[in-house]
Amino acid sequence: MTPGGAGVAPRHPDRPHPETVPAGAVPAGKDPAGDDLAAYLRAQATEFLRALRAQREHGNGAGAEGAADAGRALRRSARRISAALHTFRTLLDPAWADSMRPELAWVSGTLALEHAQEARLDRLLLALHRLSGSTPAPVRAVVHAGAPAPAAERGSLTVGAAKAGALLERRLTLARTRAHSAALEALGSARFHAVADRVALLASDVPLAPGAATAGLGPLAAAAEDRLAGAVSVLPLVTAGDPYNAQALVHGLSPDPAPHPQDGPWHQVRLLLRLHRYAREIPRTAPADPRLRPAAEALTRHRDAAEAAAEAAQAARTPRIAPATAYALGVLHADQRHEVEAARFAFQQTWQS
Amino acid sequence: MTPGGAGVAPRHPDRPHPETVPAGAVPAGKDPAGDDLAAYLRAQATEFLRALRAQREHGNGAGAEGAADAGRALRRSARRISAALHTFRTLLDPAWADSMRPELAWVSGTLALEHAQEARLDRLLLALHRLSGSTPAPVRAVVHAGAPAPAAERGSLTVGAAKAGALLERRLTLARTRAHSAALEALGSARFHAVADRVALLASDVPLAPGAATAGLGPLAAAAEDRLAGAVSVLPLVTAGDPYNAQALVHGLSPDPAPHPQDGPWHQVRLLLRLHRYAREIPRTAPADPRLRPAAEALTRHRDAAEAAAEAAQAARTPRIAPATAYALGVLHADQRHEVEAARFAFQQTWQS
Repeated sequence: MTPGGAGVAPRHPDRPHPETVPAGAVPAGKDPAGDDLAAYLRAQATEFLRALRAQREHGNGAGAEGAADAGRALRRSARRISAALHTFRTLLDPAWADSMRPELAWVSGTLALEHAQEARLDRLLLALHRLSGSTPAPVRAVVHAGAPAPAAERGSLTVGAAKAGALLERRLTLARTRAHSAALEALGSARFHAVADRVALLASDVPLAPGAATAGLGPLAAAAEDRLAGAVSVLPLVTAGDPYNAQALVHGLSPDPAPHPQDGPWHQVRLLLRLHRYAREIPRTAPADPRLRPAAEALTRHRDAAEAAAEAAQAARTPRIAPATAYALGVLHADQRHEVEAARFAFQQTWQS
Repeated sequence: MTPGGAGVAPRHPDRPHPETVPAGAVPAGKDPAGDDLAAYLRAQATEFLRALRAQREHGNGAGAEGAADAGRALRRSARRISAALHTFRTLLDPAWADSMRPELAWVSGTLALEHAQEARLDRLLLALHRLSGSTPAPVRAVVHAGAPAPAAERGSLTVGAAKAGALLERRLTLARTRAHSAALEALGSARFHAVADRVALLASDVPLAPGAATAGLGPLAAAAEDRLAGAVSVLPLVTAGDPYNAQALVHGLSPDPAPHPQDGPWHQVRLLLRLHRYAREIPRTAPADPRLRPAAEALTRHRDAAEAAAEAAQAARTPRIAPATAYALGVLHADQRHEVEAARFAFQQTWQS
């Protein structure tokens, strides 16, 4: 049951270890790339193990909030290790890096799903309340019961909005429960134990490629930045910077189901921006760019709104729903697609600043 | 059958006529207000009568386009006469002005309705095609038959979008037909003949108040501008100037049916802007402001989108429609409310420029 990990022997203990030059002993004028990269990877691996311990403690009866925090920290370090393996692949044992990355992606992907479903439900219920002109505060409290609550209990929601909220909650609670089970199953699997073992090795011993200690991180970090710049250059930024361009909803009623093909290049930029941003976390790669964080936030909002819009559209295909429910889901879909457009505008504004 | 006109005797032929000073004989330094106003009103009255003749000619079998042009010209001059009567009321016989204005409003309102229903249908069908990612060109041709056309004939519209289009077309075609009948009935009514007679008198003889010839138009035009500025000052322009503020859809799913109360102040500004704009058409009132036309266009777009959104919401309440139809109408409603928001942004940009 360890599809990705089974074929990958933990090879690096047997490998000659190039990281032998102590930090202070780097010849003057040389970029101690291997050192910086190794220190970063060791720190992230240590963080991963710490989060894993916290997750197991919280999993045994302690608070759900602690477990969520631990899960977030686990995903956070898994993403960073994976990104470093990708960007600085040539400075590392390439076979090791290539076998490790899909395993880390599987860990962060599997663990992220439960949170994503929960956040999607929150986003959609919040939007339903906003669109109903009602106070957003009691969203979760009010509609958390599962069954459609009476209209009075739902504040000033219309019947359609209340039914749409109940439908979305049924769908996304089910999806979240499934994601939770899948995450628990993953955490107990042999595949995950193999990943954890390899991360534990990484925490003490980074498999650098021969010569990595004297190579520079700069060119590889710059290459990541170039890939980002290339992907940004094909985005329709002139249109995105023109407010209310009405582009995000162009396929709002298209017979072609979600996801929208127009979102693809933006999602791609989001991933490349993340790689670039993580590469900059390693010392001596390049000065920090203040645009990176708001740009990344805009693209995350873009992704979340796009997925929420798709969920509303999918929910509207539920057989035998009332027309009022379908109408509310249509309004909600369009609202989230406008959020997509707003996020593109925000990205353009940040990027051109 | 002349409710407004019945009680109003055409009094001004019996009234002493103050417009006795020839244009060239105004004392130096005096503002020949009465002359300018009288000339403007005579010109608009003449325009009204010309359009009325054209309307009657076209009504007797000639092209529908000519009739539409004549109707537009008729409404255009009726609005301008009415506006001048309002803004410059104290320069005119006030009883005459007060009795004339509601009659002119009735004429322009009754004649405008058919065109409004037609434009609303065009706007909504165009939006449905845009939202379906299909070409907008064949909109009217494709869905003009009345009955729902097969999906294939509607280009790439989904079943929901096609059904929504057919439903809107049935509703708005019916409304347009009723408006057409009402307009024809109005044009043949004793009430309308009374209005036409009074406009014919106005074309030769403007009932100025005593002393109007020596009073200035400037203060009254400035008062109209002040009323506009006051109404603009209560608009939420800071919010409107922040793109994607998501305010226009805040009551998109509210149990309270359309129209949205938040639209009121904008509609009010639209009317006051029109009064101000028309007042400036009279010579020597003030230099023309280049913002007025784009600002007026933004507010007209605001009104049209708000009414189209309300129509989509109303259509969604039709009993026994399919969920897919209701969903498409929900998307359409939200789309038009975003047009409302976009129009507010456009107004803000124009106004602050």
